[in-house]
Amino acid sequence: MKVFVSEIEDVAKAAMVAHGAGAWQAGEVARAVARAEAFGNVICGLYYLESYCTQLKSGRVDGQVEPVVTQPKAGQVIADARFGFAQPAFSRGLPQAIEAARENGVATLAVAHAHTCTSLGFFTEQIAAAGLVGIGFTNASPVVAPPNGNKAVIGTNPISMSLPDGGMHWDFSTSAVALGKITMAKAAGENIPLGWAVDANGEPTTNPEAALKGALVSAGGYKGWGFGLMAEVLAAGMTGSVNSLDVSGLKLPDGKPHDLGQFYILMEPGADFGARLARVAQAVAEQDGARIPGQDRQPMGEIDVPDALWTASRGLAAD
Amino acid sequence: MKVFVSEIEDVAKAAMVAHGAGAWQAGEVARAVARAEAFGNVICGLYYLESYCTQLKSGRVDGQVEPVVTQPKAGQVIADARFGFAQPAFSRGLPQAIEAARENGVATLAVAHAHTCTSLGFFTEQIAAAGLVGIGFTNASPVVAPPNGNKAVIGTNPISMSLPDGGMHWDFSTSAVALGKITMAKAAGENIPLGWAVDANGEPTTNPEAALKGALVSAGGYKGWGFGLMAEVLAAGMTGSVNSLDVSGLKLPDGKPHDLGQFYILMEPGADFGARLARVAQAVAEQDGARIPGQDRQPMGEIDVPDALWTASRGLAAD
Repeated sequence: MKVFVSEIEDVAKAAMVAHGAGAWQAGEVARAVARAEAFGNVICGLYYLESYCTQLKSGRVDGQVEPVVTQPKAGQVIADARFGFAQPAFSRGLPQAIEAARENGVATLAVAHAHTCTSLGFFTEQIAAAGLVGIGFTNASPVVAPPNGNKAVIGTNPISMSLPDGGMHWDFSTSAVALGKITMAKAAGENIPLGWAVDANGEPTTNPEAALKGALVSAGGYKGWGFGLMAEVLAAGMTGSVNSLDVSGLKLPDGKPHDLGQFYILMEPGADFGARLARVAQAVAEQDGARIPGQDRQPMGEIDVPDALWTASRGLAAD
Repeated sequence: MKVFVSEIEDVAKAAMVAHGAGAWQAGEVARAVARAEAFGNVICGLYYLESYCTQLKSGRVDGQVEPVVTQPKAGQVIADARFGFAQPAFSRGLPQAIEAARENGVATLAVAHAHTCTSLGFFTEQIAAAGLVGIGFTNASPVVAPPNGNKAVIGTNPISMSLPDGGMHWDFSTSAVALGKITMAKAAGENIPLGWAVDANGEPTTNPEAALKGALVSAGGYKGWGFGLMAEVLAAGMTGSVNSLDVSGLKLPDGKPHDLGQFYILMEPGADFGARLARVAQAVAEQDGARIPGQDRQPMGEIDVPDALWTASRGLAAD
C-alpha cells in the first residue's frame, strides 16, 4: 500500500492520542515514526506503533507528562522525560542546548528517564540541522555479553553522529547485529554466521535458537564492547537513568517504565571543518561503491507500507 | 635487560635533548614514552625514540617551539602545537580545559598541528585523573580504505576513553588491526586472516604483501568506518590540522611536519555515574574471563627491555 509520509504521521499521532497520549507528546513521537519510515528504517517506524499504544494504555509510558528542562551549568542541559517519551523531552531541551553550544562552543544534552528513543539518528540530525556537530548515545535492554562472557550486560547501545549540511550521518548499534536478525533467522529456519552471538555457555554459535538463549556479541570484538560501554556509561551515568541491565524487554506490554537515557554532545564545527570533510568525501567518491555514510541521503515522500501493518495502524487510530 | 621506568624516562629525555629538543618539551615526550613502557605498550615506547630523534634532527618536528593556548569560547580550548610534539601542547592546554569543563560541565581541548601523539590513552588518562570523563580522537597517515573501496583514505584513527578512579580505560584503532600486524606477518612469512585488509583491487586478501599494496579495513566493517570518520573529522576538522590523506609515513625521516590533530572532550560525571558504572562492572566480574577494559590497570615499575633497543636508546642519548 502506497502511503504519504504525512498520512503516516497523522495516523501515528491519532493512534497515540486514542491510547491516552497528549496531542503535543503524540505529535512529537509521530514525527519520529514518520521520519523513520521516510528513510526506510521500518523497525523504528509504524512497526513500533502498537507497542507505544499498548504501553500508553498500561501506563508503562506516560503520554501526558510534561518534560522538565534544567541547566545546572552553562554547557549542561538536562531534559527529564519523567517516564514519558524521549522525543518530547528532547524537543524541550534542544533549543537551550543549541544556544549553550553556540555560546560555549560545546554543550551536552542529557535526556533522562525516557522511553526507548527508537532511532537515535532522528535526534542527532536535528542537532546537525542547527549547524552543529551532533553525537548521540543511548542504552537499551540487555542483550550483549562481554567478550569471553556468556551473559548479556549491555544493550545494543547505538551511537549516532550527524554533521551539518548533510555531510555525514550514521546511526548504528555497537553489537555485531541487531537482535531482529537472529529472530528472523530463527523464523526462517536458517543458521546465523559465527561472530553474531554466543550460546548460554558463552560458546560462539550458528544456531539462532541457542543464540537467543545466550547473548549477542559486540561488533569488532573488544572494540565494539568498548564503544557499547561508552554508550552505556554516558546514557545511564550522565542522565541518572537505569542501566541496560535493569530494563526489561522494550516491547513488554507492562512493567516498570523503560527509564532509559540518551546523551548528546553538540559542538560548533571548527573553521576548517567543511574543507576537511570535503577532502575525505572526494577521495571516497573516487572509489566505486564506497561512500561517506548518509551522504546525499533523501527522505521518501511516499512509502510502500505492508497492507496488514497499515490496516493495523489505522485500527489503532480508530480505537 | 631489566630497566626502571625512571631510567627509561631519563634516557628518552636525554636522547631528545641531544637531538635538539628543549628540556621541557623533551621531558613531556619522555613521560609519554615511559608511561607506554610501564603499561607494556612497546610500540608507543622506546621503539619510537629513534624516529623522534631523527625527525628532530631533520626538522620534521620542532622540539623547541612553545605551544600557544587560546580559548575562543568558554568551553573551547585550543592548544596549537605549532609543528612541535603533541605532549607539550596538551600539557599547556590541559589545566585551562579542566577548569573550563568544571565551570561549564563540558569542554573540548583541540590540539592542532602536532606530531603523532603515539598513545592516545596517555592523554585521556590525564583527563580522568582530574576527575573528569575523557574521550579522545586522533588521525594518522592514510592506511584504511572505505568499505567496498581499495584506496586508503583515513588512518588507523584511534579513539580512547578514560573514566575517573580507574573505572574504565580503553584506547584502540578503528581499523581491524594495526598496520604492524601485517608487517609482522609478512616478516614471519605467514598469511593474515580474511577481514584485516584488501589488495590493490579492493579484494579481501590473506597475503600480507598484497595487503601492504592495498589497504587495511575498518573494525566491524561499516561501523568501524563510521567511527574512523568520526575521529578524522574531529581530529582534522575541529583543529584545522591536515587530513590523514595528507600526512606521509609517520616515521619517514624528513618531509613536511605531521600536522596531525587530536581532539578531546572533557565532561563532569553525572551524580550517579559511579553507581551506574559499578553496576555494569559487577555484572561483568561475575563472568569468568570477561572484563571492563582497563579495570585494575597497574603500571610496571621495572621493564624488560630488549638489549638491542636499550643499547640503541642509550646510544641516542650519548650522541
